[in-house]
Amino acid sequence: MDRRKFIAGTGLAGILATGTAPVVHAQGATIRWRLASSFPKSLETLFGGSEIFAAKVKELSSGKFTISTHAAGELVPAFGVLDAVQQETVECAHTAAYYFFGKDETFAFDCAIPFGLNCRQQNAWMFDGNGLKLTREFYANYNVVNFPLGNSGAQMGGWLRKEVKGLEDLKGLKFRVGGFGGKILEQLGVVPQNLPAGEIYQSLEKGTIDAAEWIGPYDDLKLGLYKVAKNYYYPAFWEGGAQLSLYVNSKAYQSLSNEYKAILDTAANYAHTQVMARYDARNPSALRELVANGVRLHRLPKPVMDAAFKVSQEYYAELSNKNPRWKKIYADFSNFRRDQNLWFRFSEMSFDNFMQSQKL
Amino acid sequence: MDRRKFIAGTGLAGILATGTAPVVHAQGATIRWRLASSFPKSLETLFGGSEIFAAKVKELSSGKFTISTHAAGELVPAFGVLDAVQQETVECAHTAAYYFFGKDETFAFDCAIPFGLNCRQQNAWMFDGNGLKLTREFYANYNVVNFPLGNSGAQMGGWLRKEVKGLEDLKGLKFRVGGFGGKILEQLGVVPQNLPAGEIYQSLEKGTIDAAEWIGPYDDLKLGLYKVAKNYYYPAFWEGGAQLSLYVNSKAYQSLSNEYKAILDTAANYAHTQVMARYDARNPSALRELVANGVRLHRLPKPVMDAAFKVSQEYYAELSNKNPRWKKIYADFSNFRRDQNLWFRFSEMSFDNFMQSQKL
Repeated sequence: MDRRKFIAGTGLAGILATGTAPVVHAQGATIRWRLASSFPKSLETLFGGSEIFAAKVKELSSGKFTISTHAAGELVPAFGVLDAVQQETVECAHTAAYYFFGKDETFAFDCAIPFGLNCRQQNAWMFDGNGLKLTREFYANYNVVNFPLGNSGAQMGGWLRKEVKGLEDLKGLKFRVGGFGGKILEQLGVVPQNLPAGEIYQSLEKGTIDAAEWIGPYDDLKLGLYKVAKNYYYPAFWEGGAQLSLYVNSKAYQSLSNEYKAILDTAANYAHTQVMARYDARNPSALRELVANGVRLHRLPKPVMDAAFKVSQEYYAELSNKNPRWKKIYADFSNFRRDQNLWFRFSEMSFDNFMQSQKL
Repeated sequence: MDRRKFIAGTGLAGILATGTAPVVHAQGATIRWRLASSFPKSLETLFGGSEIFAAKVKELSSGKFTISTHAAGELVPAFGVLDAVQQETVECAHTAAYYFFGKDETFAFDCAIPFGLNCRQQNAWMFDGNGLKLTREFYANYNVVNFPLGNSGAQMGGWLRKEVKGLEDLKGLKFRVGGFGGKILEQLGVVPQNLPAGEIYQSLEKGTIDAAEWIGPYDDLKLGLYKVAKNYYYPAFWEGGAQLSLYVNSKAYQSLSNEYKAILDTAANYAHTQVMARYDARNPSALRELVANGVRLHRLPKPVMDAAFKVSQEYYAELSNKNPRWKKIYADFSNFRRDQNLWFRFSEMSFDNFMQSQKL
C-alpha cells in the first residue's frame, strides 16, 4: 500500500486523536480510534478479523464510534503494537500475544503454548474458566485490557524441503518458526529462525532456511510456500488453537461509557467467532488445491511429538520456578487442560473419529 | 416457579407489548420484547443462554431495548414457541430447531441431523458457508428470522439400564430420544419415546422406559439420571454439535432500527459463544462426579454406529426425493460436511488425539 495515500485517506482525525487526552465520553459521543494490526492487509482471515470488529463497533454505535484499522508497518511495525498500546500511541491493536513471549513467557497463555488447548478449550478457559480474569490481571502491568479476537484452530506444522522421519532429521534444521515453538524445537536440535511473512518464500527458495511454518492451508497457499517445499507436516503442536487478541489501552478503555465498553467487548466477540469460522470454512478447498499441486501431507513422527512434549513439560516446570507470573497462570491453565482432555476424549472425539473415517 | 409471582414481577409492559402492532422504532427508542424459551429455568446452560442474550441486548442499548425471558410453560409450552413467534404472540423464542422436525425435517439443519457437523463445523457453515443464508430462506416460510444462539457440542448417547453390546440389544429398547435420532434408531429396532425433561427420571426409575438421553454430563447430573441407570453411552451420533436458535418474528425484526438489528445479531452471537464455553468448562467436573457415583462409560459399539450411519444416509436420500426444501439444503450441507471432515482429520484431529493420550 502507498503510505502517502493511506495518510491522505484515513485520516487526520485518527492521527489527531493520538495526541488528545482521553475524556469521559457521554453516551453516544463521537469517538475515533486507531487500531494497529500485526498482520498484513493481504490476509483477510487475520487482518480481516480487525475489519469485522471495527465494522461491528461502527454499526452498533450508529456510526458514532469508529476505529480505523492499520496493517503492520503502517503506523508501527508488526511487533511494535504492544508498546504502541502501552504508551497510548494508538488506542488499540490486533495481534498474537505469543509475539511478546520474549518480554515475558506469560503472554503466550493469551494465544497458545506448545501442547496447550485447542480452540474450543481455549474459549472455555477464557469465557467460563479463569482465563480472561487471569490474563487481564497480567496485562494490567502493560496498561492493556485484552479481548479474544479470533483463533486459527490447530495449525499445520510447516513446510519442509526434505522429509523428517525421526528425531535425527531435526538436527541443524533451519526452521522459520515462532518464539515458543522455536524454543522447544531448539532443544531437539532445530535452529529456529524468526522471519516476517513477507520474507519466508524467498528464504525457503534460496535455501537460507530448510523449513518454514506459517498457519494453515488457506494462508499458506497465499504465501505460495508449496512451490518451494513439498512436504507439509501436521500438527503444529505449538499452536493447537492459537488465539488472537485485541489490546486496548486501559486509560482509553476506562474513558468509554458503559455502552461503548459493551460495544467493544461484544464486537470483539463477534469477530472472534467469525475468524474461526472463516478458517474452518476456507481451509478445505485450499488444502485440496495444495494436494493437486503435488504437496505431500505427513504426520509428524510420534517420537518427535513425544520428545517435544517431554521437553515442553520440563520447560514449563523450569518457568514456574523462575517466573511467578507464569507460575500463577500455568497452575490454573494446566488443571483446566487436564480436565478438558479428560472430557473431550469421549463424545467429541468419538464422533469426530467416526465421521472422519466415513466416505461422505 | 409461582406463575402469579412471575406475572406480578415481569411485567405488564411485556404483556401489553404483545397486543401492540410493531412500529418503526426511531433509533434509541424504548422497546420491550418477550422471549419464550423451550427450556426450564433450572438449566443455566440452556435457559441461561437466553438470559445472557437479553442482558447483552439491554447493555448494548443502554437499557432501552429490553427482552424478558420466560421458561418453557410460562407463556407457551416448550414445543409451542415456533407457533408463538410465527403468530407474533411473542416477538422471539429460544429453542432447538430439531424439535420441529415433525413439521418439516428441514428444521434440523439449524440444530443437528444424525451424523452431521460438530460445533466448529456448524459455526463455519452458518457464518462463512451458506448455512445462515439457506436456513433464513427456509424460515421465511414461518415468519421467522433465525440466529444461532448456543451449541451443546457432541452430546452423550444416553443412560441405559442394561448394556448394549451389539445391534441385537437394541430390539424393543424403549428409549427416550429426540425426533430425528429416534427416527434413525427406530429402524434399528429401538422404540423411541418422547418425554419432556421433567418426566425422564421417573419413567426410567419405574422401568416405563429402558433408556434415556438428554444432553451431557453437566445437565444430566442435574436430572439425576445416574441414580436409575448406570451405563452412560457415547457419542450421540444424532447430535454431534446441536445448535440452539433464536427465532425472531420477521415483522418485529423489520420494525427495528439498523442499530437495534445489529444489537440483536451481536448479542445472539455473544451468547452463542458463551453457551458452548459453559458446556465445555463445566462438563468435566460433572463427568468426574458421575464416575465417582459408579457410572460406567461405554462407547457405542461400532456395528451400531455403522448400521445407524447406513440407515441415516438412506433416509436422507429418501427425504431428498420427497422434500424439495430438504433437498436444497442437504446438497450444500453434505458437500460442506465432506470438506470439513477432509480437513479436520489432519491438524485438529492429530493434535487432539495426541493430547488426549498424554498424562496431563
